[in-house]
Amino acid sequence: MVDPVTMPTLIAKSILLEEEMVRILDRRIFPLKTEYVDCRDFEDVAVAIEQMVTQSSGPFFAASAGFVLAARRAEVLLTVNERLELLSRAAERLLRTRPTNNNIRNVITSLLAEARAVAGEEKLGERVEAMARQAWARQHEHSRNLGENAAKLIEDGDTILTHCWGESGIIDALASAVRAGKRIKVICTETRPYLQGSRLTAHSVAEMGIEATVITDSMAAHAMDRGMVNKLMTAADRVTLSGHVINKVGTLQLAIAANNFDIPFVAMVRFPDAKASTPNDVRMEERDGEEVLHCLGMRTATPLARGWYPAFDVTPPRLVSAIATAAGVFAPTMIRDRFAEPAAA
Amino acid sequence: MVDPVTMPTLIAKSILLEEEMVRILDRRIFPLKTEYVDCRDFEDVAVAIEQMVTQSSGPFFAASAGFVLAARRAEVLLTVNERLELLSRAAERLLRTRPTNNNIRNVITSLLAEARAVAGEEKLGERVEAMARQAWARQHEHSRNLGENAAKLIEDGDTILTHCWGESGIIDALASAVRAGKRIKVICTETRPYLQGSRLTAHSVAEMGIEATVITDSMAAHAMDRGMVNKLMTAADRVTLSGHVINKVGTLQLAIAANNFDIPFVAMVRFPDAKASTPNDVRMEERDGEEVLHCLGMRTATPLARGWYPAFDVTPPRLVSAIATAAGVFAPTMIRDRFAEPAAA
Repeated sequence: MVDPVTMPTLIAKSILLEEEMVRILDRRIFPLKTEYVDCRDFEDVAVAIEQMVTQSSGPFFAASAGFVLAARRAEVLLTVNERLELLSRAAERLLRTRPTNNNIRNVITSLLAEARAVAGEEKLGERVEAMARQAWARQHEHSRNLGENAAKLIEDGDTILTHCWGESGIIDALASAVRAGKRIKVICTETRPYLQGSRLTAHSVAEMGIEATVITDSMAAHAMDRGMVNKLMTAADRVTLSGHVINKVGTLQLAIAANNFDIPFVAMVRFPDAKASTPNDVRMEERDGEEVLHCLGMRTATPLARGWYPAFDVTPPRLVSAIATAAGVFAPTMIRDRFAEPAAA
Repeated sequence: MVDPVTMPTLIAKSILLEEEMVRILDRRIFPLKTEYVDCRDFEDVAVAIEQMVTQSSGPFFAASAGFVLAARRAEVLLTVNERLELLSRAAERLLRTRPTNNNIRNVITSLLAEARAVAGEEKLGERVEAMARQAWARQHEHSRNLGENAAKLIEDGDTILTHCWGESGIIDALASAVRAGKRIKVICTETRPYLQGSRLTAHSVAEMGIEATVITDSMAAHAMDRGMVNKLMTAADRVTLSGHVINKVGTLQLAIAANNFDIPFVAMVRFPDAKASTPNDVRMEERDGEEVLHCLGMRTATPLARGWYPAFDVTPPRLVSAIATAAGVFAPTMIRDRFAEPAAA
């Protein structure tokens, strides 16, 4: 059977692992321009991640592909110690790129452990590549499960408001709803300063054949007030065991508005972070305030002011209606019970 | 005594009525560039207002200055009927520019009535100019009174969050607080799509010697969550007798957030609109959705999406802590009692 949904460019062609390099779709300018940043070693990949060439779950794929490049380079070194040193250095460098990004941490930590176990093997590069591709397949499977679970909360005729770019989570949820014959529309906040909403989300949603409307970040409450929004659905960078949702700054403001208008807020995450009991356990990234004073590289603000750019905010559980995960849909108050790791004996 | 506050460019030099023309400071690009749009007759002024060359209370001054140009042109016509026809046509044209703008309506309607009474006089242009300048002086006096009343709500050490560009209301309030020795800081939402906050407000606040920080429109709730905001203060395009605040879209979203964090929201308006009992009596302006897909003339969004641009939203009285006016500070529920016009006998 032919899938009635076209998967968007950002999901299908975002990170390309090739023979000589990793090619990263430049999300800072896509879809106004379709350009790739070509990375020939892990350092290039790390810099690209730091420079926001890719974001959301892009860094997960990019960092692990960068680690494959490191393994290929390690393969030509003579001693196992030299190989181990290079692999550790690459892992450490890639981990440093985005401290709030759980997915990078998990995949790089586990790839490093697996790679160390086979560091003496002849085809080290191929072995690590196979491990990375397996991790990607698992990620895709979890994302599809998350999408199917989240889609159960979408009703025929819904207009869904989303913020920033929710990557495969929101895309798989919308795809699953469309496959189930539900007619939906999407409103995207533009998501300053990087405009992920007006560029990435709106484009991807439209590529799927779904009507996409862009609003500025401050119009959401008014759209709700006019009865135009049935659900607020966003990705979550992290969900803590306490049921707090950590996501792109602005999510809190939308959740407060949704709560005011009795509109459900569904946060989507493959899995909550079993290592974070509360938001206090999460290191929050603060970015350069200058970014708020620019738009697509152009100065937008008076030279007399300073900018402030907290990258994430925290939405408390009382403002979250449901957390959709790869393992099912849960009330935020149920997260600890369901996902806490058993205490060590 | 020397005023310790420097009045900003936007207040002091925004609309210049000269011998041959009206010069309108182009707020679409200020302060990145300081350019004036030169208007030689009322039609030029009307087009400039429609094209958002100036906004907030700028159109009040611009429209009345445009009407002075019309009166000067009428002066050279032979018959009173011709003069009346031109004055009516100019008034009608200027009124059509911004249907939600109360100030244009009031000043043009009253200037037209006054001008009709002296339409036969030799120095018609000078007479109408004197009338316009009197209206401006009244406006400035009301604004100073509004500012002094609003400043009573500002405490020493406050950080004030504001949205869009509140024109002389917010500036006079800040100036009054500074004159009273209060140390204050201001956080400005950038206010997409036109960036009035990051350009106009932040610049003017900084010109006054007050620390100005710019955030994107979606960071306000997070700033509140971090304890960084003591008051939300915005201008109001209109306040209805029911105590509803109609202002730049985004005000509602900020008011909801402020309410969530128990932060007072003070709306500032010279006078509530005695002709509008409720928001149903106000014609709300909807602008071209394309504007949301651009920033300073540059495309920011995918070509596959449409934009939506409601210019104003409505904040209900339960989310408004106080309405500061030229006549004093009032609870929103007191507006009807205080400002309703006596019923006709």
